[in-house]
Amino acid sequence: MVWDAWGIASAHAPLSDRIRTLVAQVFGVSGEPVARRDEGDVPLRESGLTAAHRAGLSAVVGADQVSADHRDRLLHAGGKSTPDLLRRRAEAPQDAPDAVVFPADHDQVLAVLTYCAEQSIAVVPFGGGTSVVGGVDPARGRFDTVIALDLRRLDGLSDVDPVSGTATLGAGSTGPQAEKLLAAHGLSLGHFPQSFEYASIGGFAATRSSGQASAGYGRFDDMIMRLKVATPTGTVDLGRAPASAAGPDLRELFAGSEGTLGVITEVTLRVHPIPETTAYQAWSFPDFATGAAALRTVVQNGAAPTVLRLSDEAETGLNLARSGDIGGAPVSGCLAVTTFEGTRAHVAARSAEASALLAAAGGTALGEQPARDWEHGRFGAPYLRDALLDIGVLCETLETATNWSNVERLKAAVTTALTESLGAQGTPALVMCHISHTYPTGASLYFTVVAKQSDDPSAQWAQAKRAVGDAIAGHGGTITHHHAVGTDHRPWMTAEIGDLGARILRAVKDAVDPAGILNPGKLIP
Amino acid sequence: MVWDAWGIASAHAPLSDRIRTLVAQVFGVSGEPVARRDEGDVPLRESGLTAAHRAGLSAVVGADQVSADHRDRLLHAGGKSTPDLLRRRAEAPQDAPDAVVFPADHDQVLAVLTYCAEQSIAVVPFGGGTSVVGGVDPARGRFDTVIALDLRRLDGLSDVDPVSGTATLGAGSTGPQAEKLLAAHGLSLGHFPQSFEYASIGGFAATRSSGQASAGYGRFDDMIMRLKVATPTGTVDLGRAPASAAGPDLRELFAGSEGTLGVITEVTLRVHPIPETTAYQAWSFPDFATGAAALRTVVQNGAAPTVLRLSDEAETGLNLARSGDIGGAPVSGCLAVTTFEGTRAHVAARSAEASALLAAAGGTALGEQPARDWEHGRFGAPYLRDALLDIGVLCETLETATNWSNVERLKAAVTTALTESLGAQGTPALVMCHISHTYPTGASLYFTVVAKQSDDPSAQWAQAKRAVGDAIAGHGGTITHHHAVGTDHRPWMTAEIGDLGARILRAVKDAVDPAGILNPGKLIP
Repeated sequence: MVWDAWGIASAHAPLSDRIRTLVAQVFGVSGEPVARRDEGDVPLRESGLTAAHRAGLSAVVGADQVSADHRDRLLHAGGKSTPDLLRRRAEAPQDAPDAVVFPADHDQVLAVLTYCAEQSIAVVPFGGGTSVVGGVDPARGRFDTVIALDLRRLDGLSDVDPVSGTATLGAGSTGPQAEKLLAAHGLSLGHFPQSFEYASIGGFAATRSSGQASAGYGRFDDMIMRLKVATPTGTVDLGRAPASAAGPDLRELFAGSEGTLGVITEVTLRVHPIPETTAYQAWSFPDFATGAAALRTVVQNGAAPTVLRLSDEAETGLNLARSGDIGGAPVSGCLAVTTFEGTRAHVAARSAEASALLAAAGGTALGEQPARDWEHGRFGAPYLRDALLDIGVLCETLETATNWSNVERLKAAVTTALTESLGAQGTPALVMCHISHTYPTGASLYFTVVAKQSDDPSAQWAQAKRAVGDAIAGHGGTITHHHAVGTDHRPWMTAEIGDLGARILRAVKDAVDPAGILNPGKLIP
Repeated sequence: MVWDAWGIASAHAPLSDRIRTLVAQVFGVSGEPVARRDEGDVPLRESGLTAAHRAGLSAVVGADQVSADHRDRLLHAGGKSTPDLLRRRAEAPQDAPDAVVFPADHDQVLAVLTYCAEQSIAVVPFGGGTSVVGGVDPARGRFDTVIALDLRRLDGLSDVDPVSGTATLGAGSTGPQAEKLLAAHGLSLGHFPQSFEYASIGGFAATRSSGQASAGYGRFDDMIMRLKVATPTGTVDLGRAPASAAGPDLRELFAGSEGTLGVITEVTLRVHPIPETTAYQAWSFPDFATGAAALRTVVQNGAAPTVLRLSDEAETGLNLARSGDIGGAPVSGCLAVTTFEGTRAHVAARSAEASALLAAAGGTALGEQPARDWEHGRFGAPYLRDALLDIGVLCETLETATNWSNVERLKAAVTTALTESLGAQGTPALVMCHISHTYPTGASLYFTVVAKQSDDPSAQWAQAKRAVGDAIAGHGGTITHHHAVGTDHRPWMTAEIGDLGARILRAVKDAVDPAGILNPGKLIP
């Protein structure tokens, strides 16, 4: 990905005239994009990598796999949250890791960690670099030196068991790489988060990612059968059976560990045959509460959709779920999207069952096209954010989850926190929301917030983020449903797991990483 | 339950003439039951409870809730494995906890743990006492005193959220109590392990129990939304949302912790409406491999049975899955049982789909009756074991799980280990097996082994258990799918989770229970 925005340069595009005019009018910005710097012109904090450390790391991975080049360092300078991008566009010099190290395999990762523990070098494991919570910030903590440990060379499919429906992938494989490798065996993972195109298998595991087809295929943590992890004190290889009663499930310590407890190098995943067919059906509900109750009925009934989502009135009104129509003629009500994948017989039966439930719950069928439109544009929203940032508009997303009975209350609390905080700063906000992940007992809530940038947009957002984090913690939500903790959600971790929970995490950290070199400042309170 | 056998006395029955004759003939035993001792006549290790400790514990829970009575101590002298029952029938004096303490609520549990940590008193959390792995042995470790902490007073339903489909139950509620309380709200948990009638909600969570309807409703750990746990260093209350990316899932440390990390006092569980209807269908397969492949097809296809099980040729031949016919006319092939619960429409569609798959995979439909027979007798097997033990026959069960591609190999390895070990001891064994829990990626294997008791049946079984544990660990199985670890599987825990996994468990233990009072000698290697 490019250093100061999402994705690849060729996919970047300025806003359409329609959107730019609308945004300029609503938020009072000029609509003229600011110039962005060329990556070669960006001043970087000087690399503190010593010759001895370069030699020591080179002895493990080879001299050509240790880089302190400007470009490599800049491309590992952090993730892709709005604060990340604001900082990258504003600050000089940029902070960056002292070096980027590219190990080839598990044993090299283990050796790098051993070396760094001995030499007091902080290590930031780096997959696709798509974190939106500061998870890959080049934070050095109490160490003089920090390296980014880029896992891209740990890619590939090392084993397929078609009878058991499992596949073993290297942690560095990206989403598209994994799907392509599996497709050669007629298989699919079915994990399609918005970061799909760039994020890695190891990153999905380390952050408890959840994809847009989670209703059908589960969260990424549900798919993990086995994890191989390198730590400064050795290797753990966890997961011997589809299910076990052999004590605590230690896989669940490393899933979501965000590089603070070890480096996930290999993951065995549950996979499924490439579906025979996919059915699309969009719906309109008169209001969010009616739509949410309808989604709940479908998931609690077991009608088994693959994708099940609902946009609220604000998001529907702006057509945010239909990339080609954003800012077009306003749409009333709440748009819901369903897809069903599988055998023709299952798809026919399950979509018919869900349709009957959704219609009975107050939905109006809109046909296939809006659902196909959503799917077509589903990885594109981060590009839109970049274009908005370019014209002086603040745009960020955040997410939580709660029980069905608490969905309305939590949604209202989050919306109020955002509108009040940003409004009080003189930058009235537009807040939109959708449900994109459903469970029998509850759902996720994903918010998009847009406002005019203040003179100090980083401080502006930090204030809003504090307000909304407190609102989530105070109204029964989890501080993150699928974005993970990183640095940005760390202030709420003690509220999430309690003082003793935090002590337990620190005890595990001390056991596996006594020197504390792994991803300092992330996750663990 | 009675002190030296399973269940309640009124449900005990001698073997039928048919079974006794058959067993006597096959295994060369007399068939005459030995006399069992009255509980009042059993010599017990003297209670070492000091007056000061009695006073200290009484100050927390009340004097009438601290018992060093012969009967209370005897009834908390351990679990219900075959070695437990052999020891209880053979040894004198019996070991027992120095006292049994009955706290009323979470705060009392917390206070008891704080007191015991200060006073160096070992604590064995005690739910239904149904452990078959030594999980509730009154082991005192390095402490002079051990108490059983009986949680029966922490029962009841404290909250129901019918919208979200969740219910909060006290850890001491038994299976039948929980189902009765939920039924008043039209809800069910659907967790029916063989121990259902006596085991407790907290015990299910602490051991990662799995019920006979796991295909439909999942394992108990799948149902856990929230856990409240008392530890010597404070309370943890985990689980804020249906799903979260807020770091490691610490619920998964306490699920399966078997009382070594804390005392689970309250559990919020996913529940479902009482099903409208249940369909039963039994099948015959020509051999186990064909039957296993058929089950795999059903679970991988998503036909969603509630119960899905398959007995091998040996178990089918003895009619062990049909309690009324055990030892009757031999049956060839392999019996499979399916049930489908839910709405009438779902049951009709799903049972039709599964039937088509099972027939196509080589199954012959046997109608409803054998499936109903299985359900009728499903909690009765432990009583049969007691009657066999009474006539000098050794009978024990053990279980594992593995990927579908490894099922045949693991089954053969376990069978060989049992037959060779017991054969070499001059007591040829009959080994039977069934699949009772299925997953998209694999299945459990549950073995029943029967042989003539040697002069020292405890040593006889210990030798066989070592052989079979090594065979499981060496052939890709988990050391336990749903019986848990306790003392009996502890020798294989390092093979299961590795040296570093074991170090992690000890680090967590040190963080929450620095005095090491909780359930000494169990689970943690």
